[in-house]
Amino acid sequence: MSKTWTCGELNTKHIGQEVTLYGWVNSRRDHGGVIFIDIRDRWGITQVVFSPDNQDAFRLAETVRSEWVISVTGTVRRRPPGTENPRMSTGEIELAASRLEVLNKSAPLPFDLDDDNLPDETVRLQYRYLDLRRPKMLRNLQLRHKVTKFIRDYLTARDFIEIETPILIKSTPEGARDYLVPSRLYPGHFYALPQSPQQLKQLLMVAGVERYFQIARCFRDEDLRADRQPEFTQLDLEMSFVTQEDILQLTEDLFTSLTEELTDKKILYKPFKRISYEESWNKYGTDKPDIRYGMEISDISDIVANTDFRVFKDTLAAGGTVRGFAVPEAASFTRRQLDDLTNLARSFGAKGLVWFAIDDLARGVEGVRSPVTKFFSDDQVVAIAHKLGANNGDLMLIVADKTLQALDVLGRLRSHMAHELGLVDQDVIAYAFIVDPPLFEWNEDEGRWDPTHHPFTAPYPEDEPLLDSDPGKVRAMAYDIVCNGYELGSGSIRIHKRDLQAKIFEILNYTPEDIEQRFGPLLKAFEYGAPPHGGIAPGIDRLVMVLADEPNIREVIAFPKNQAGVDLMLNAPSPVDEEQLRELHIEVRLPEPESSTADSKVQ
Amino acid sequence: MSKTWTCGELNTKHIGQEVTLYGWVNSRRDHGGVIFIDIRDRWGITQVVFSPDNQDAFRLAETVRSEWVISVTGTVRRRPPGTENPRMSTGEIELAASRLEVLNKSAPLPFDLDDDNLPDETVRLQYRYLDLRRPKMLRNLQLRHKVTKFIRDYLTARDFIEIETPILIKSTPEGARDYLVPSRLYPGHFYALPQSPQQLKQLLMVAGVERYFQIARCFRDEDLRADRQPEFTQLDLEMSFVTQEDILQLTEDLFTSLTEELTDKKILYKPFKRISYEESWNKYGTDKPDIRYGMEISDISDIVANTDFRVFKDTLAAGGTVRGFAVPEAASFTRRQLDDLTNLARSFGAKGLVWFAIDDLARGVEGVRSPVTKFFSDDQVVAIAHKLGANNGDLMLIVADKTLQALDVLGRLRSHMAHELGLVDQDVIAYAFIVDPPLFEWNEDEGRWDPTHHPFTAPYPEDEPLLDSDPGKVRAMAYDIVCNGYELGSGSIRIHKRDLQAKIFEILNYTPEDIEQRFGPLLKAFEYGAPPHGGIAPGIDRLVMVLADEPNIREVIAFPKNQAGVDLMLNAPSPVDEEQLRELHIEVRLPEPESSTADSKVQ
Repeated sequence: MSKTWTCGELNTKHIGQEVTLYGWVNSRRDHGGVIFIDIRDRWGITQVVFSPDNQDAFRLAETVRSEWVISVTGTVRRRPPGTENPRMSTGEIELAASRLEVLNKSAPLPFDLDDDNLPDETVRLQYRYLDLRRPKMLRNLQLRHKVTKFIRDYLTARDFIEIETPILIKSTPEGARDYLVPSRLYPGHFYALPQSPQQLKQLLMVAGVERYFQIARCFRDEDLRADRQPEFTQLDLEMSFVTQEDILQLTEDLFTSLTEELTDKKILYKPFKRISYEESWNKYGTDKPDIRYGMEISDISDIVANTDFRVFKDTLAAGGTVRGFAVPEAASFTRRQLDDLTNLARSFGAKGLVWFAIDDLARGVEGVRSPVTKFFSDDQVVAIAHKLGANNGDLMLIVADKTLQALDVLGRLRSHMAHELGLVDQDVIAYAFIVDPPLFEWNEDEGRWDPTHHPFTAPYPEDEPLLDSDPGKVRAMAYDIVCNGYELGSGSIRIHKRDLQAKIFEILNYTPEDIEQRFGPLLKAFEYGAPPHGGIAPGIDRLVMVLADEPNIREVIAFPKNQAGVDLMLNAPSPVDEEQLRELHIEVRLPEPESSTADSKVQ
Repeated sequence: MSKTWTCGELNTKHIGQEVTLYGWVNSRRDHGGVIFIDIRDRWGITQVVFSPDNQDAFRLAETVRSEWVISVTGTVRRRPPGTENPRMSTGEIELAASRLEVLNKSAPLPFDLDDDNLPDETVRLQYRYLDLRRPKMLRNLQLRHKVTKFIRDYLTARDFIEIETPILIKSTPEGARDYLVPSRLYPGHFYALPQSPQQLKQLLMVAGVERYFQIARCFRDEDLRADRQPEFTQLDLEMSFVTQEDILQLTEDLFTSLTEELTDKKILYKPFKRISYEESWNKYGTDKPDIRYGMEISDISDIVANTDFRVFKDTLAAGGTVRGFAVPEAASFTRRQLDDLTNLARSFGAKGLVWFAIDDLARGVEGVRSPVTKFFSDDQVVAIAHKLGANNGDLMLIVADKTLQALDVLGRLRSHMAHELGLVDQDVIAYAFIVDPPLFEWNEDEGRWDPTHHPFTAPYPEDEPLLDSDPGKVRAMAYDIVCNGYELGSGSIRIHKRDLQAKIFEILNYTPEDIEQRFGPLLKAFEYGAPPHGGIAPGIDRLVMVLADEPNIREVIAFPKNQAGVDLMLNAPSPVDEEQLRELHIEVRLPEPESSTADSKVQ
């Protein structure tokens, strides 16, 4: 039974050898009085020929069906001239079978393992063990293994220690909801699953580990959005006695060598572009820009300040902005296409979309088409075009709104147009660092400052005086690594001094009880010689997704949950025995019907 | 700030260079008008000298205390003759400091970082980030990293794919209790944390992965016994188209090369001993024998069958057994020591302990001391001694009881005596495979067969006929790897055919609902071409513990829970907000007071 040969390795060097192969029946066909079976395993496919001379094997081969598990013994021989298959590594040979054994039968599969005729994802996830038989899925799993292996080799060679931190911990303060695990031994007590090992890795720095990493499982009970999973994997990395620059350099070198070693993709910018948070929003309308293409956004507020176009004037008067970008060679869009674009902009939250299709800029307003030409002078149109870098044949898209709103809509339109017009080079990876975000964001709803990154992030030392006078202006020593429009991960230099940390908590308006309950162990640790430290935590799922050219992370996770958080194969989550709940000292409290909620309001 | 030198690397080659070191103050002493500070980091310790010539640095150095975080710039110079320290890698040089910076202060530590004066483990776990500063703990973490890295390298080179399986799954059927995670999106539904990825790895074999491994986190909500943790780490490994022999060979080669590469320990038996489950119980009174020493147990029932000693006669008449072993050179034990041994045997569950101290075997009964000599003849005493391999000066320990009970007591006594008498060679590792256990164990309490290993374990094909006639005689293709008295892990060849699996379930008396609920996905998958497969799952915590010579697994886990399942540093588990519970659709049901239980009985 011991497998000594794979189905992907036999070639003309092996002609004349007797070998035994083990695998699955990829296909069977009867042709010219003989039976051909393609046997498949993880490594490839080999063609096996059963001739009637060998009666026992031949007869058994007649009964065999797709996906049966077999072993075949035979002699390697050269394929007859003209029947070679150059697309297979084993295409020059075939196995002349002398013995066949059926190790297991298979019912007909619920769907074909054909990449081009896949069923709905629901079916694929339900039968994930069959879906994973497709070579493409297997390649994704292999790539994922190579990526984590590469990271481990790379960091181990640089004296990092991989340390496993616990999964059963206490609630962490990172914004999302915790998954809770009731304790059987302590009634009314709960463990929480880590949203990330944030406090633990900082505690490892206090312990003097200096260079820590972990390929860590993290858990967030978030409302499910496109392409999130309840559990995900990140490279968690932390160092002591480093600057932001040290961490960015290390990250850049790791991602560069990993990408170049494991894929054929070209890295667009070496060194990686560094884009400030503010610049990213202003140019790309997002903090995770795709810089594989241009179409940068510009501010045309000053140009249009004096037009007669009421929408622009009113917006500017209310403290808003007017911004836009140029879409190359899109002046030929039909009116219908332009209406669709306007509707798309509205679906992104815009009040409207102004467009100018440029035929001949030399003719001023006469040379452009737009429903609003009458409000603009020749000079204004030319100035707008210059500011947006638009030429004859281009389309200009303009939004007037509050600044963040306008930028957000334009960012989405920019991404949409790039994909629509095929401007996105799939063979290219454009990594960038987004740096210098503000330390705090103003939370309009709650009327308070929230941390942009997390409450342990250090401000730039030169901005510390602003903590009292103008907290919104304080820049954080924090950074994101982004790639092709995705955020891969973020990191920061952490606060390591108690007094600064206390001041930040004060600005964030945390109560002493809150601080003790959420950050107690870390603050305690900071009393005993905490070194300066910082780190970064790129997500593995998204990284592999980008490297594998897949549209979502489920394609690079062996057993993902669907977008509703359900494992369709295992059927989880599921009800459990009352006895189990009793042991855990909890009971289910089903949502109250509407009416009883109303009642309670009456009281 | 970027750290370019460690505190462990400077030597005479660097004399004359100016360097900056970053680390913790290991100690400070003032001597002969200068200040010596030993600065420590992960890599070592360097002696720094502050002379009053350099006033600023000297004055600051005067204020510095243990465990403060500092950076020091200075020039490497040779230590004055006679002051070298040959036990330090940096012992020939010192740093003449020109600049000192205090990066962070430290309060006095709650305990000394001195291996010989450690506080209670409770304090160590509470301040784990300080406990981990001890070089010994750091070495353990490093060894653990090296072990997992070695395993990953080894298996990757052999074409295994590491695949991450989910942590949020459905209840598995492995005997222990599951940790449950309430779902927020599905009221009354729960995920479970995996006790092991058993079904998932078998599904990966159905998927055609063929060679899978994972360093996997597992969770068991067991009643806490010595040296268990709620979460633990195992090497989970599964292969298709293999025999038991293939898996044992691979495991042996992996453990051999790992041990020899990473430690100075000598492997006692190469190839590893293979001991049948039955032999292990008979010779060592356990299924996880420590074979670093002898003192094997023998059956003396037939020799003592005809003595006048009532205890032996009655036990044998009731179907019991009389067994014992010889303790070398222990005839000189005092009566008090022997009484203590008897009490120990009783605490192990024995009804009593019979001992014979042999002075001169040639003199028969006259030559031995024992409270029961009068019941034995010369021949019988000599025969017993021969059977147990006892010589003059040895002590024979004998127990009469039901077989399993007698063996269990003798096994514990054997281990106790070996440690008591210093017969255990700490520099030696004795791996062994325990093979051929029974497929089923009779559960006396429930009056049914239970799986010895787990319900997917395959019987020996030649024993399959016994499934109907005598299930207790069927041997499993299962194996444990044991080492120095610990079980490191177990594995088996799995059933891959539905009909055999159905038969096993029938013998185990599982209901169809039970089967569907617990094993549904796997059984479904078995319809679609499941290959023959098997695997093994050694525990990483215990392996590293053995390799590091530590007495318990908490010493090789960064942030362990205590033996009551509590994380003393994070304070988990803990109560949570009512709001969190409400979102999860559960409420706490505290244990009822005794009285109300009584009431409910009255009803």
